[in-house]
Amino acid sequence: MKLNEILAGIKPVDKEMHKLAVERTSQLIMPPRAMGRLNTISEQVSAIQGTLKPVVDKRCVFVMAGDHGIVEEGVSAFPQEVTIHMIGAFVAGLATINALARHAHTRVVVADIGTKAGIAEAELKGDNRFVVRNIAKGTENFAKGPAMTREQAMQAIEAGFAIASEEIQKHNLNLIATGDMGIGNTTPSTAIGMVYTGLTVDQMTGRGSGINDESYTVKKNAIMKGLEVNSPDKADAVDVLAKVGGYEIGAIAGVILAGAYHGVTVMVDGIISTAGALIAYGLSPESKEYMIAGHCSEEPGHVKMLEYIGIQPVLNLGMRLGEGTGAVVAMNVVDAAASIMREVATFAEAGVAEAL
Amino acid sequence: MKLNEILAGIKPVDKEMHKLAVERTSQLIMPPRAMGRLNTISEQVSAIQGTLKPVVDKRCVFVMAGDHGIVEEGVSAFPQEVTIHMIGAFVAGLATINALARHAHTRVVVADIGTKAGIAEAELKGDNRFVVRNIAKGTENFAKGPAMTREQAMQAIEAGFAIASEEIQKHNLNLIATGDMGIGNTTPSTAIGMVYTGLTVDQMTGRGSGINDESYTVKKNAIMKGLEVNSPDKADAVDVLAKVGGYEIGAIAGVILAGAYHGVTVMVDGIISTAGALIAYGLSPESKEYMIAGHCSEEPGHVKMLEYIGIQPVLNLGMRLGEGTGAVVAMNVVDAAASIMREVATFAEAGVAEAL
Repeated sequence: MKLNEILAGIKPVDKEMHKLAVERTSQLIMPPRAMGRLNTISEQVSAIQGTLKPVVDKRCVFVMAGDHGIVEEGVSAFPQEVTIHMIGAFVAGLATINALARHAHTRVVVADIGTKAGIAEAELKGDNRFVVRNIAKGTENFAKGPAMTREQAMQAIEAGFAIASEEIQKHNLNLIATGDMGIGNTTPSTAIGMVYTGLTVDQMTGRGSGINDESYTVKKNAIMKGLEVNSPDKADAVDVLAKVGGYEIGAIAGVILAGAYHGVTVMVDGIISTAGALIAYGLSPESKEYMIAGHCSEEPGHVKMLEYIGIQPVLNLGMRLGEGTGAVVAMNVVDAAASIMREVATFAEAGVAEAL
Repeated sequence: MKLNEILAGIKPVDKEMHKLAVERTSQLIMPPRAMGRLNTISEQVSAIQGTLKPVVDKRCVFVMAGDHGIVEEGVSAFPQEVTIHMIGAFVAGLATINALARHAHTRVVVADIGTKAGIAEAELKGDNRFVVRNIAKGTENFAKGPAMTREQAMQAIEAGFAIASEEIQKHNLNLIATGDMGIGNTTPSTAIGMVYTGLTVDQMTGRGSGINDESYTVKKNAIMKGLEVNSPDKADAVDVLAKVGGYEIGAIAGVILAGAYHGVTVMVDGIISTAGALIAYGLSPESKEYMIAGHCSEEPGHVKMLEYIGIQPVLNLGMRLGEGTGAVVAMNVVDAAASIMREVATFAEAGVAEAL
């Protein structure tokens, strides 16, 4: 589906159901809203699903992969080959996201949206689905010019949308999560975050996978140079993605738009996924209503980006891995929240007189 | 079992296994300790269980109930009968803890340790176990004298230990949680917190189930009066419990000691459970090694009490219900952490060259 059709198909959540959900929360056998964020999340999921009996048991995490021309500047502690090696580990089920996804009864779908090495679907063996939608062998170095063309940016979003839509429809998914793999991808994510939040490179930039002081300075300079050279237009999300983004970031935006399009709750992972969420939000403000921020990562820019969108993280556990790990761990909290709306009795139902 | 035998039987966790677990974490296919708190929790559970393949699949939450003489001062928004009504809801499976426990595959055991109304085991119907170990029909008003005798305080701890030990042994539990029910019980919990932390009544006191300004002042005055009248001895945890505590708080301390005694990880819930944890920690500093704080509640004193013990909350979701709800929601995060230690490959195992 083309981007303009996708955007035209995204509807707001069920506001009437949201009101009913808030009303039910107020009658539950507990002091008013004593479950805090869990009450809020349960109401959001009710509004998304249009029911007071929300269920989030059919799940998938979409791990989108891409490489980044900007790594030639020296912004990452890891060599670029690690992107493709990690894809192999995801498909084989050996990585952190696999353990966490198994534990959360969540399917793992891995997609090559723009890795440098490229790899055929037949080459990887394992229990998890691997999809190749390689748009280019990595982005261009955005410190020197646009990361990709406008056309490629749209293709990345549409690829993510298509992959997620297929899975949502085939498996009747009711809870999806975004994940990423791409050596160097906190750099474009931070650049995207700066475009939207307007904050400085010092406020926004972290150490990604763990770079030293020297590389940290290199990273900040590369981001500054990239923003200066490209002048991305904040009002045009495709332009931002094309100029300082990444293929997996575009695909993540597409996954989020697929959730919104099909009425499925989307767990957003860390800073890379949130860069994708900023693009999705820029394209479709309504898409925000379908998003839940899984966690707040160690990357300093992450929380600022979440605040810009206006979504609060569920977890804050010092995680900084990506892959969708924070989003998947938080799925169980969303499940707990849904069970409150679905299963907890009201004072009247339990036959306990409401006090106060 | 008598308290002195219990305390003599508590051993430190396996420090050698902890070292091995930290070593394995450093080799996992991720940047160093990129799962943050999840890495730390997985190492703690490994040390508790003495294995690099920790499992936390057999679970129970112990909801300890008691009433409080101090409510006659006007410290709570709810009438005292709600304690016994809520016990009925727990046993019938209608309350919040039931929904969350089902979702977390966790057994619910409810115990009357000191409710005012009292209730026979045969009177309640439902799928959840209900145990009566009623030591007294509620505490005395501690603003006027000790809440209970020293003997009763020990009985409360021993009752909690006995109930939890029986379940641990019968069901081979490997993860337990504490919960509470007792109208007015943030008041004794805050008093216990003040004894240990040395902080002021204004720093420590919250609005519990949601009291107005007038009752809030009454609550603070009652706590101050109780501490003045009773002068609990911080160095003697049984004295603290007897003078300004509650029966369910003593039983929670006993549940925690049972976890430590049997080598089972204990999820500590909110401020009431943490008051119990302070008593357990006062009796047995080693018991801390078995504790994981489920969440940080809205009660201002809670985080100060956790800091005193030296344990960090897993979740921070604005919950303020008690019943064990925060502890049970956090169980899934602990499960996720255990799966990382158990299932994630090392760089070598995955055949990915370690960078850096």
